[in-house]
Amino acid sequence: MNTNTLKLKYLGIDTYKHAVIFLHAHAFVSRSEGFQVPTRVKVILGDKQILATLNTIENGLLTEEQASLSNYAWQQLDAQEGDTIALEHPKPLLSLSHVRAKVYGHSLDQHAMQQIIEDIACDRYSDIHIATFLTACAGGRLSKSEIISLTKAMINTGKTISWGTGTHEIIVDKHCIGGVPGNRTTPIIVPIVTAFGLVMPKTSSRAITSPAGTADTMEVLTEVNLDIPAMRKVVEKEGGCIVWGGSVDLSPADDVLIRVERVLNLDTEGQLIASVLSKKISAGSTHLLLDIPTGPTAKVRSLETAKTLKNLFKLVAHKLNIQLNIIISDGSQPIGRGIGPALEAQDVLAVLQNHADAPQDLREHALTLAGKILEFSPKVGANKGKLIAVKLLEEGVAWQKFQAICQAQGGIKEPKIAAYTHTIAAPHQGKVTAIDNRQLANLAKLAGAPEDKAAGIVLHTPLETVVEKDQPLFTIHAESQGELRYTLSLLNQIPTIVQVEAYE
Amino acid sequence: MNTNTLKLKYLGIDTYKHAVIFLHAHAFVSRSEGFQVPTRVKVILGDKQILATLNTIENGLLTEEQASLSNYAWQQLDAQEGDTIALEHPKPLLSLSHVRAKVYGHSLDQHAMQQIIEDIACDRYSDIHIATFLTACAGGRLSKSEIISLTKAMINTGKTISWGTGTHEIIVDKHCIGGVPGNRTTPIIVPIVTAFGLVMPKTSSRAITSPAGTADTMEVLTEVNLDIPAMRKVVEKEGGCIVWGGSVDLSPADDVLIRVERVLNLDTEGQLIASVLSKKISAGSTHLLLDIPTGPTAKVRSLETAKTLKNLFKLVAHKLNIQLNIIISDGSQPIGRGIGPALEAQDVLAVLQNHADAPQDLREHALTLAGKILEFSPKVGANKGKLIAVKLLEEGVAWQKFQAICQAQGGIKEPKIAAYTHTIAAPHQGKVTAIDNRQLANLAKLAGAPEDKAAGIVLHTPLETVVEKDQPLFTIHAESQGELRYTLSLLNQIPTIVQVEAYE
Repeated sequence: MNTNTLKLKYLGIDTYKHAVIFLHAHAFVSRSEGFQVPTRVKVILGDKQILATLNTIENGLLTEEQASLSNYAWQQLDAQEGDTIALEHPKPLLSLSHVRAKVYGHSLDQHAMQQIIEDIACDRYSDIHIATFLTACAGGRLSKSEIISLTKAMINTGKTISWGTGTHEIIVDKHCIGGVPGNRTTPIIVPIVTAFGLVMPKTSSRAITSPAGTADTMEVLTEVNLDIPAMRKVVEKEGGCIVWGGSVDLSPADDVLIRVERVLNLDTEGQLIASVLSKKISAGSTHLLLDIPTGPTAKVRSLETAKTLKNLFKLVAHKLNIQLNIIISDGSQPIGRGIGPALEAQDVLAVLQNHADAPQDLREHALTLAGKILEFSPKVGANKGKLIAVKLLEEGVAWQKFQAICQAQGGIKEPKIAAYTHTIAAPHQGKVTAIDNRQLANLAKLAGAPEDKAAGIVLHTPLETVVEKDQPLFTIHAESQGELRYTLSLLNQIPTIVQVEAYE
Repeated sequence: MNTNTLKLKYLGIDTYKHAVIFLHAHAFVSRSEGFQVPTRVKVILGDKQILATLNTIENGLLTEEQASLSNYAWQQLDAQEGDTIALEHPKPLLSLSHVRAKVYGHSLDQHAMQQIIEDIACDRYSDIHIATFLTACAGGRLSKSEIISLTKAMINTGKTISWGTGTHEIIVDKHCIGGVPGNRTTPIIVPIVTAFGLVMPKTSSRAITSPAGTADTMEVLTEVNLDIPAMRKVVEKEGGCIVWGGSVDLSPADDVLIRVERVLNLDTEGQLIASVLSKKISAGSTHLLLDIPTGPTAKVRSLETAKTLKNLFKLVAHKLNIQLNIIISDGSQPIGRGIGPALEAQDVLAVLQNHADAPQDLREHALTLAGKILEFSPKVGANKGKLIAVKLLEEGVAWQKFQAICQAQGGIKEPKIAAYTHTIAAPHQGKVTAIDNRQLANLAKLAGAPEDKAAGIVLHTPLETVVEKDQPLFTIHAESQGELRYTLSLLNQIPTIVQVEAYE
């Protein structure tokens, strides 16, 4: 037997999306190759190869001729117990020298950016490397031309979808910068716009730092993990879809970056622009409506920042040949009542089904955005879009279209309901004068969202609501008692979330 | 049994310095608390607690009531098989908001730096968090006052040793920035300086990326794993010691940062200064001699960089009340012949025992440094130190003192000799014009150093040596035939290590 080959034994170790190889502490391959914990080694099985972090294991679980893998690595290699793997020193990651250069303040050209993004997309970077790249680019350290290079590199490394220009003149899309809890407009907009006849093949993200992304919310209602052929079928049939962008492999580097950004809780401007535009362009969109909610506790806090971001977005979009319309909207409080995948799904259903008690703010905002998207059509005059949108919603056409899209994606589901709730009441009578979006989102995440689909917050009292003493302000929903207990135990450490100002 | 408690089972999983807790994939605690891979959980055992990354394991290795730990976590908790641990959600890491502020270009004050370093020292940061902090501080992004704050924070979070000011007026110390193989001056300097009567309680490091650290070399000759009380006894008896710094727990945050820096291969100036000065000040040193070897393949590559570093070091040292003298020395080639723990120990012994064939460059450099340290004493005039050092060495006083220190640390040992060697000879006659420090160090590590104490390289021909064809250039030492064969098999992939330029 070659000294660099080992037989695989299954141990069922789950390390999340982290490829780990486990060897005997005194495996000969480690001595002969000079491998030491926690070095990265190249693991080869047939025509597949991955980089994995070396860990060792004693206690008789592995012999010197055996190796085991973390579950993620088993998947990546498509390995079976008993398979023979070979280990090698990985090639040096040459693109790291570009990352180091960026750390030291040098600028990255298209070639350097391309090399970095390719290595990231192929899972060659460790978390430490990725965090270093992200940090070196954060805080306004990417120039305009670097943002353009980054966007192009992200498009180049992934798949791109073409919808055939003969059939459809324009492919519309929509994106919201986020930072406003709730605000789940996409599942309302897509059926309105596609019912009108525009093509809107919407790919959405999962939560990065928020308690829910559109993909998390839609997953409560239907299947969202569609690959490109499946997505194409839905779009050909219904004119639109709402699927998870990660499963169609557009801009794969972005998904890796987002996983690490999420731990850091960093939102970086250049990264944001590249992430949004690369996904939209890869998805074949020609016209994009961008929503930038602005408010003291939203992601974008001032009108000035919103305008700077708007200009940067416009500039990069122009260079990359995508039509872009941008709305700066009110981000001073959540939109809709629910915060968390299933709770937001309930708001969406209430609006689509024209329930009397549907959250009016969510309805209004979705109709405004849908109207603007309709105006991309040469058939719709300026400021005429919203009226059309209202009609399509009120007549039930949007709700029918939504059901048809869900059916085409794999069937419609009922949102799950959380088993444990706790309501926070007004300490005295008065008026709601401020709501802290960030702390509300934090609380929803502490309660388990978005991993626990039914977890989150329901906000009962928007800004300006006049409340009595002990009137419910918001309700925490959790799937386990431990999580509810934990969330409540931290409540007193969190600044006041819903400010009630007593009357004079 | 409390649903949050579990019984520990040993699996011997080595993840390096990474605390991991392994649970059954369907452990009840995960469901009740909502823990999901790879979240960080608080693990409590008696009065000890750590944060660990959650991984799960299937295949019958653990029951739902059992948990296992990575070896590092076993150590940190001082746990025994069968111990009962409790799991909790960790408190939110408030100091991360300071890290984010730094990423966005804000400056960190003493308080913020202290909170960050405390969380790092207590192992509360993930690798991603640490990499972000290091990157945000790299590339000259730490101001002078931030470097001072960082140094103070590192001192505050670890143990500090006080030597009693009444007894000794000054406590001397020495540090070398590194990057030059061999160069094992400390074991020669300490006996000279202490024989003169100065107090030098030296803590040294093990190899990080090099084939040997001073602690690795000294371990060949005596015991180096002394805790503070044991170290104090040696110093009280002999006036000095040479022990491993890791076992005395000075500046623990530094050890965590170094582990991540190693992966990044980033040398960050501010981090380096804080690392060196915090360790020395924590160890109670009042006077420090710093050696900055400079050369094309050393760590510091240009005189300009060396001078910038020198000025920053001086400034921070001044603010922290430690007397600092800095030498910028020649780092163009190895110092001494041996590279690897035992081979370097032999060089040290040859110099201390005044052997005729002792490496003169090592002897000279050690005497220069020892002389400079002696000049910290009010009894020694400017430039008079070296003569005193020479006398103490030549008269055998230093050798006697060295033996006494080794005896006090636990007895003196003979260095092991490698069983297998292979010599690389000059391909033609000529003169040695360049030596690649980095590749020499790499080769010594391939041969097994520092884990194999006797492994490494002996360099026969320093720069400017005139050689005949087939004259030995360097010899590879290995403890096993397999390792020697492996090293030789890789020789042709390594750039020329010793350049021999033929005569015209």
